[in-house]
Amino acid sequence: MRENVKVAIWGFGAMGGGMAEMLLTKKGVDIVGVCDRHETRVGKSMFEVLGVEKGDRPEVIISANIEDVVYPGAADVVLCATDSFTKSAFPRLKYCLEQKINVISTAEEMAYPQAQQPELAKQLDEIAKTNGVSILGTGINPGLIMDLLVVILTGCMTNLEHVEAKRVNSLSPFGHTVMEEQGVGITVDEFDKGVADGTLAGHVGFEESIAMIADAVGWKVDKVETQMKSIVTDVDRKSPHGFAAAGNVAGVNMTGQGFVAGQPIIDMIHPQQIEPEQVGVNTGDYITLKGSPEVNMAITPEVEGGLGTIAMCVNMIPQIINADPGLKTMLDLPVPRAIQGDIRDRIK
Amino acid sequence: MRENVKVAIWGFGAMGGGMAEMLLTKKGVDIVGVCDRHETRVGKSMFEVLGVEKGDRPEVIISANIEDVVYPGAADVVLCATDSFTKSAFPRLKYCLEQKINVISTAEEMAYPQAQQPELAKQLDEIAKTNGVSILGTGINPGLIMDLLVVILTGCMTNLEHVEAKRVNSLSPFGHTVMEEQGVGITVDEFDKGVADGTLAGHVGFEESIAMIADAVGWKVDKVETQMKSIVTDVDRKSPHGFAAAGNVAGVNMTGQGFVAGQPIIDMIHPQQIEPEQVGVNTGDYITLKGSPEVNMAITPEVEGGLGTIAMCVNMIPQIINADPGLKTMLDLPVPRAIQGDIRDRIK
Repeated sequence: MRENVKVAIWGFGAMGGGMAEMLLTKKGVDIVGVCDRHETRVGKSMFEVLGVEKGDRPEVIISANIEDVVYPGAADVVLCATDSFTKSAFPRLKYCLEQKINVISTAEEMAYPQAQQPELAKQLDEIAKTNGVSILGTGINPGLIMDLLVVILTGCMTNLEHVEAKRVNSLSPFGHTVMEEQGVGITVDEFDKGVADGTLAGHVGFEESIAMIADAVGWKVDKVETQMKSIVTDVDRKSPHGFAAAGNVAGVNMTGQGFVAGQPIIDMIHPQQIEPEQVGVNTGDYITLKGSPEVNMAITPEVEGGLGTIAMCVNMIPQIINADPGLKTMLDLPVPRAIQGDIRDRIK
Repeated sequence: MRENVKVAIWGFGAMGGGMAEMLLTKKGVDIVGVCDRHETRVGKSMFEVLGVEKGDRPEVIISANIEDVVYPGAADVVLCATDSFTKSAFPRLKYCLEQKINVISTAEEMAYPQAQQPELAKQLDEIAKTNGVSILGTGINPGLIMDLLVVILTGCMTNLEHVEAKRVNSLSPFGHTVMEEQGVGITVDEFDKGVADGTLAGHVGFEESIAMIADAVGWKVDKVETQMKSIVTDVDRKSPHGFAAAGNVAGVNMTGQGFVAGQPIIDMIHPQQIEPEQVGVNTGDYITLKGSPEVNMAITPEVEGGLGTIAMCVNMIPQIINADPGLKTMLDLPVPRAIQGDIRDRIK
């Protein structure tokens, strides 16, 4: 049998750490290195940071230098969980590809970098091909819920006229960083200022999801519009890592539209907030496809974002190792699937 | 630009005819030939049989001889809508592959022929490779609802423990053949006799769906059990092509289990009947995945089976033309997607 699949992890926050925890439960795979720059983690054992028994596994000491972790032959794939944007991730992704190692990126924009960074996407494709490896961006959303799942459901339609993808989710499971990024707890004035000056990120991914759906079905999108509004709470809301007093912001309502021939035919609706249950909001993922036959899908409650992203990245490891060289998207590869058996059985 | 994609159709019943109707609404594709043995169709214009204006399209006369329709260079793909079982479809599929033409089959067992006909699957793979073409079986179910859609949803899970796929559908849109195959309108005694002597087919596909899911996630299935029970109606039920008097059979409840290490961890539940609304049964497709995170999906009402199968077969045309030679399954290929633009844009 072939030797274990070797995985390196770059970025050991909630996502990178979660991927390590998941990988440690799987057969036929070893974590061979971790790079992270956070002072509380550098120089420590990965197992200690995770709070997982090392058992008879080889030690993995977290390094701040990527050269110690990612070099030719070091791994079959690098999971890169460091960025949200293609531009900021680019130098890291390029570095890994040039070491001739396949890459899976959690950067939201990398789920479909053709949408907002076509030039960087082209460069990544060329660098990957030159080095005989492949690169994929994925996650729960973008990556599955508001794009790939939409696409696969259109597959049972003889004619598609309109797409609505709606993800109503709770931010309560998330930590301080997400609270800040989404504006939880701030005043409405602060929120509006953050939107105006671009310091509030909100959800990153509508441009990517819309382009992925449109390219998949063959629609030419003329323009994409997005809106970002505060969700103001009438009552105090408290989550493990967030608090919004009555009158302040409990979350963000993101909406977006992809226009084809002047009509908004791809509608994205994505309100995210802490403690939605407290005000009677039922969370869920909803896809409504108009055309023939119509498709009306609901996943209730919504697929949990953190675990979902961790799973998508890890579960796509075999597909990216098996792929032809180049930049890949979820549209190009065989479907994601849980890994319950030995990962080696899936490597061609 | 490359020339139009050329499609031949073998079998011009509800499925083959429906695929032709769908293809006639699409850009960049021509139907180049139709083979059908039904006396009411042989020798007639395809357009006349469909009741569609020919316009300036070339005439297509339906032939009873496959040699007139499928020969080297005749088409890029043959849609073969003639059978439910791999064994009966095999000589036809072999013939097409030997003409060096890609094939998409509607035969339910061909959605995963490895399940019940591994030797024939191996032969099809070899014949396809020898001739440099590829072959796929697909449809709404098996093909999407109780298998591929399950698989893709497991992709967002870090751990999968149990699968339940439930399809509660109406048989009312279907014609006389389906009424007979599913036992609609017969007595309970007749139904039980039909089950015992194997003349009642019921739903074909549980073995295939279970094997597809298990192989995808890496479970080893020790055994598959299936059950087939009559759905007896308390009231008279009448559909366009079916009638069940009170006390007789309105449909069939198919159930199946895939056992892993002695436990039934893949559960399939598929009651089909005419006029379910009349007795308060809400139709829908339901997938419940236990593990982490849990996924609880519903499509209501169910995706219509006839249109769904037509769409899946037509929408997979680009993927099977682009595929490497050999026998493919929905697990191997990029996801299905509606074709709204020019099909030629999707051919590599």
